[in-house]
Amino acid sequence: MSLFLRALRGEDTPRAPIWIMRQAGRYLSEYRALKAEHGFWTLARTPELATEVTLQPIRRFGMDAAILFSDIMTPLPDMGLSLEFRPGPVLDHPVRTAGDVDRLRVPSEEEVAPFVPDAIRLLRRELGDTPLIGFAGAPLTLATYAVQGSGSKEYELFRGFLRRESATADALLEKFTDLTINYLRAQVAAGAQAVQLFDSWAGIHDLATYQRFGAPAAERVLSALADTGVPRIYIAVGAQHLYPAIARLPLEAVSVDWRMPLSACRNALPGLTLQGNLDPAALLGDEASLTAEATAVLREGLGGPHVFNLGHGIFKETDPDMVARLVDLVRGYDRHAAMATAAGVA
Amino acid sequence: MSLFLRALRGEDTPRAPIWIMRQAGRYLSEYRALKAEHGFWTLARTPELATEVTLQPIRRFGMDAAILFSDIMTPLPDMGLSLEFRPGPVLDHPVRTAGDVDRLRVPSEEEVAPFVPDAIRLLRRELGDTPLIGFAGAPLTLATYAVQGSGSKEYELFRGFLRRESATADALLEKFTDLTINYLRAQVAAGAQAVQLFDSWAGIHDLATYQRFGAPAAERVLSALADTGVPRIYIAVGAQHLYPAIARLPLEAVSVDWRMPLSACRNALPGLTLQGNLDPAALLGDEASLTAEATAVLREGLGGPHVFNLGHGIFKETDPDMVARLVDLVRGYDRHAAMATAAGVA
Repeated sequence: MSLFLRALRGEDTPRAPIWIMRQAGRYLSEYRALKAEHGFWTLARTPELATEVTLQPIRRFGMDAAILFSDIMTPLPDMGLSLEFRPGPVLDHPVRTAGDVDRLRVPSEEEVAPFVPDAIRLLRRELGDTPLIGFAGAPLTLATYAVQGSGSKEYELFRGFLRRESATADALLEKFTDLTINYLRAQVAAGAQAVQLFDSWAGIHDLATYQRFGAPAAERVLSALADTGVPRIYIAVGAQHLYPAIARLPLEAVSVDWRMPLSACRNALPGLTLQGNLDPAALLGDEASLTAEATAVLREGLGGPHVFNLGHGIFKETDPDMVARLVDLVRGYDRHAAMATAAGVA
Repeated sequence: MSLFLRALRGEDTPRAPIWIMRQAGRYLSEYRALKAEHGFWTLARTPELATEVTLQPIRRFGMDAAILFSDIMTPLPDMGLSLEFRPGPVLDHPVRTAGDVDRLRVPSEEEVAPFVPDAIRLLRRELGDTPLIGFAGAPLTLATYAVQGSGSKEYELFRGFLRRESATADALLEKFTDLTINYLRAQVAAGAQAVQLFDSWAGIHDLATYQRFGAPAAERVLSALADTGVPRIYIAVGAQHLYPAIARLPLEAVSVDWRMPLSACRNALPGLTLQGNLDPAALLGDEASLTAEATAVLREGLGGPHVFNLGHGIFKETDPDMVARLVDLVRGYDRHAAMATAAGVA
């Protein structure tokens, strides 16, 4: 089994597998070229193009996992929510009322974004031994965009909506939960070997609000994947205050941001594989600062199973040579030797 | 002495004093009218107008403290950094090199934004017993804007700069520290009875980066105010992971955001007055949800000295009638009776 899947299953692997959030993206000239030619939506909806983009960082860096090139908003049009990317997602008609929620239809496993399972099948043929991660937006985060209507700094419309229209919010979250279950099950059926659930905006809420709205929806999605046997990764950014609730979700791994050292995250998320958590800004530094920061993350990760990643998506300004250096560094770090040294010192 | 100053000095006051971040602002029609007439920069730089705007929420709601109407960027032009508000601050020439830092001059206490001490003197005459808070941006946050050049979601330019140009960053932080000391001392000399240091963007950094760059600068500013005797409030948003370092700063109070309950904040910030921490979105809810959320904050605040506030600035969409309800609710909450009941139950 691949290092990546072994680490997700709880093994203290001899070295940390590495992949990078948004590894197929704008910091790569070969991605920018394809995007300039086709535009984001066409790339995401054409299996051959999505496959090509997904493979670009694998060819360049030999990452330990591939993640399907897509966007968490991709399945929303199949519910009747039309949207554009300018470049962030913008909904033509945000969801604001009970009537808006009633009109949303939940596509079946077969109906939802069929170009995604098609791309997954193509990718599995191309990827060989490199495992492929499927992903989806978590219901709370999908609802955040659907109600707000676009990206926002504070998502105040959505936060007011949860308070004034909590029954409508529940109905909306239920539909997004059913959607996400169908979407992820379709990805696994097509060949995704792990899934990552992106609750990107969960961290704007306090623990009580998250426990009321976000955690139950995420729990239902993750539980519905239990019988597939694929490892489940959950990510929320700026969400350290939610770890008491996240620790109780049915999952194998949590992807954590760069704010808190992995050892402190491990205390808050006991028994789970941790994925992370280099500051994406470390790749904007120089060789010396990158080495120091990445080594600190590797050392912090020794306390249990660890998948190396950034704490958030890679910046488009990143020099790909710095990524190559990072991959070499992580590859060269012998965790078992480091653990033995640490034990000898202690 | 006013309730507000008593709470800042560590007293468990019989009721929690209340003021609201950005209480003089766009949610008030009388503010929007003045802003439409004069524009933000003229309001901030004309003592009579800044005084009028500062007084608007005091007249409407009888807040327990006034905060000078201004912006953390106000003193930057006196260093040679010209900027505009569109509506967020945008610098004509961001600071990027050692030469850029060399060219910055540090204005003296007398030279820095003299319209601010003028407004403070006018305000003290108008305010009577209501205490007046002065404020400034913390050096790390000023440097964040100065290098990035404008508001940003991720401030990636600044985060890369800290890594590649750490000596230049140190020199820049030193100049901003000297500026902030002079600026806050001038405000206290003119009559400010408390100061709040806004480290608005400190929370994007991990603890090690904050301890390397942010905390030493904040510490020097706060130490330089010790001999004035005015209470010092520090605020960083999304910064729970920095509390171990913030707890060691020389200050009387920390303003905390809505993400973590006040009891948990108190454990992380022992012996300090806490200010906060209602979610600003609670004011976008209905009466029932506002009452429930505000009462929860009041109850959480019982464990020590508490100044009621929002966890972040009020949203411009807020209905001022909801603010009036909140002020009534906080005024009517008898902390001593609630503590006695809690003790009886325990």
